[in-house]
Amino acid sequence: LNDEARNLAWQHQNQLTKPPGALGRLEVLATELAAMSGQSRPELHHPHCIVFAADHGVVAQGVSAFPQAVTVEMLKNFVAGGAAISVLAGQNDFQLSVVNCGTAQPCDALQGVVHQPVAAGTADFSQQPAMTAAQAQAALTIGAGQLDLLHQAGCDLFMAGEMGIGNTSAASAMAALLLDLDVAGLTGPGTGVQGEALDHKTQVLSASVTRAQGSYNQPLDALIEVGGFEIGAIAGAYIRAAQLGIPVLVDGFITTSAALLAVHLNPSVRDWLLFSHGSAEPGHLLLLAALQAQPLINLDMRLGEGSGAGVALSLIRQALALHNNMATFAQAGVSGAED
Amino acid sequence: LNDEARNLAWQHQNQLTKPPGALGRLEVLATELAAMSGQSRPELHHPHCIVFAADHGVVAQGVSAFPQAVTVEMLKNFVAGGAAISVLAGQNDFQLSVVNCGTAQPCDALQGVVHQPVAAGTADFSQQPAMTAAQAQAALTIGAGQLDLLHQAGCDLFMAGEMGIGNTSAASAMAALLLDLDVAGLTGPGTGVQGEALDHKTQVLSASVTRAQGSYNQPLDALIEVGGFEIGAIAGAYIRAAQLGIPVLVDGFITTSAALLAVHLNPSVRDWLLFSHGSAEPGHLLLLAALQAQPLINLDMRLGEGSGAGVALSLIRQALALHNNMATFAQAGVSGAED
Repeated sequence: LNDEARNLAWQHQNQLTKPPGALGRLEVLATELAAMSGQSRPELHHPHCIVFAADHGVVAQGVSAFPQAVTVEMLKNFVAGGAAISVLAGQNDFQLSVVNCGTAQPCDALQGVVHQPVAAGTADFSQQPAMTAAQAQAALTIGAGQLDLLHQAGCDLFMAGEMGIGNTSAASAMAALLLDLDVAGLTGPGTGVQGEALDHKTQVLSASVTRAQGSYNQPLDALIEVGGFEIGAIAGAYIRAAQLGIPVLVDGFITTSAALLAVHLNPSVRDWLLFSHGSAEPGHLLLLAALQAQPLINLDMRLGEGSGAGVALSLIRQALALHNNMATFAQAGVSGAED
Repeated sequence: LNDEARNLAWQHQNQLTKPPGALGRLEVLATELAAMSGQSRPELHHPHCIVFAADHGVVAQGVSAFPQAVTVEMLKNFVAGGAAISVLAGQNDFQLSVVNCGTAQPCDALQGVVHQPVAAGTADFSQQPAMTAAQAQAALTIGAGQLDLLHQAGCDLFMAGEMGIGNTSAASAMAALLLDLDVAGLTGPGTGVQGEALDHKTQVLSASVTRAQGSYNQPLDALIEVGGFEIGAIAGAYIRAAQLGIPVLVDGFITTSAALLAVHLNPSVRDWLLFSHGSAEPGHLLLLAALQAQPLINLDMRLGEGSGAGVALSLIRQALALHNNMATFAQAGVSGAED
């Protein structure tokens, strides 16, 4: 990060016609983007969200409220413009693309989606590793490759979204392995699992994590043992974004589990991550705490797709507009604070 | 409020391609605006912010970090486009107007400001009532009149901002009277009063509230005894907005004190109030609790001018875009939750 640009940005903030600090976290945001961009007056022209999608073999254990067919159905909805993230892309003026990292149902004919399937969904991680080491590497590579393309296209802020029935289960189990925490405290309703079904989900995940702990030696094993192709792709995208100097706006529970993996694989990634929202999914708080992250908004959202990031992008835009367009005390002829 | 429109809006929300409730408070916001507008698919075309400005005699006691001249200097800045609220109006596409309710320094020549001064600032309320009963009525009438004009112009969401060196002192003292709370717990740094100066501010306000309590018989006395012209105008504007059926997005500490007065004068006003942000000014939490209000964002802002409302407006726009533009499960051919 560029500390000189950050310092210049703070100097500028303190000359704007407001009491110092009165714009709170909007001031911090503007200066963080200054440090990331190397520009004391950072601008945002090409924010881009990629939704990475894949299926999860563990849904065979009945851990989700929705059928697996929804993953591909929602891919169609993203492309057709009817999904929440599609509406937000139009409303908030960011680019949206969709990458198929491996759905259970074939969808190669679906136009408008980048098809790079690793396999037709992961294996059922309650019984065996979710993927092979080669598949994990392939998933990471998908995300890195997409970020190389975004970088060439001039992307100046990256958001990842995800779609994959069952992927809160993968996120919870991965986080339990990475943080050595009881998975029960990281397990929540996802799309709407409640009561006995939630107890069942917790039991499946506890058994899965216990199975996986026997093979866990390093962070990448979390992805191999209990991860997902889309989660691996997002982790790979975050790592490459950091390497390319592209600021990242993390979405909710699942993308934060990918961020946790990315930071465990490469701690310097953390510097490039901004956190958009605190999810209603209860485990998200623990993941945010582990990453020492303070999200911008808390609106009880729990949809995924990148929707929390898509909403929070508007706050970044406003922070930069204020930073770049407010008058200084000298310009406006306004008196400063009295000593 | 229109419960039929609210119910229809909830039915629509539950058909959109997301797990029910997954958009959290954005769903609630859309349905609240449905109830206020009487439209199950509410739209927002003419949001308007009025900044009401006035001066405060109590600054003679040294309760503010900034000189009184800043009130008029900032009026110029609002009109010239350099203030935070001016930048936000451009960024978030809302109308902005500025009403002079009584500045200490004359500024009648300033173009682009509506000049309706009650007097050249309030009296020093540490020594005597801030204003007469007739002045309090005049202040309320300014706000009501402005809302009548906005209504004629088709305004469909109202935000108030305020400018007035010393007005956190008035807001704290008014809230202490209205809620019968110790003013010390409602007193904070405002524009940046700290340490001994903050202790001094608290002492001035404690003595002022003690003086005023002797004359306090009804809510309007809070305005008369320790209020401000701009705060009275905002309370009058909120009351008239509710009468006209215009949704209100409340800003921060000072506008919330005006909302508190408005609700004490006319409890049905509460139905029309949405709350934008939780201010860094510590007393704001108590005012929000008294109004059973949950703000949308918490970004440690403490600027006033309507800036918190101006920022949060973007969330309302996004809530309505999602409500109105997402596909339903039937439209998108997406499977619903399994029973």
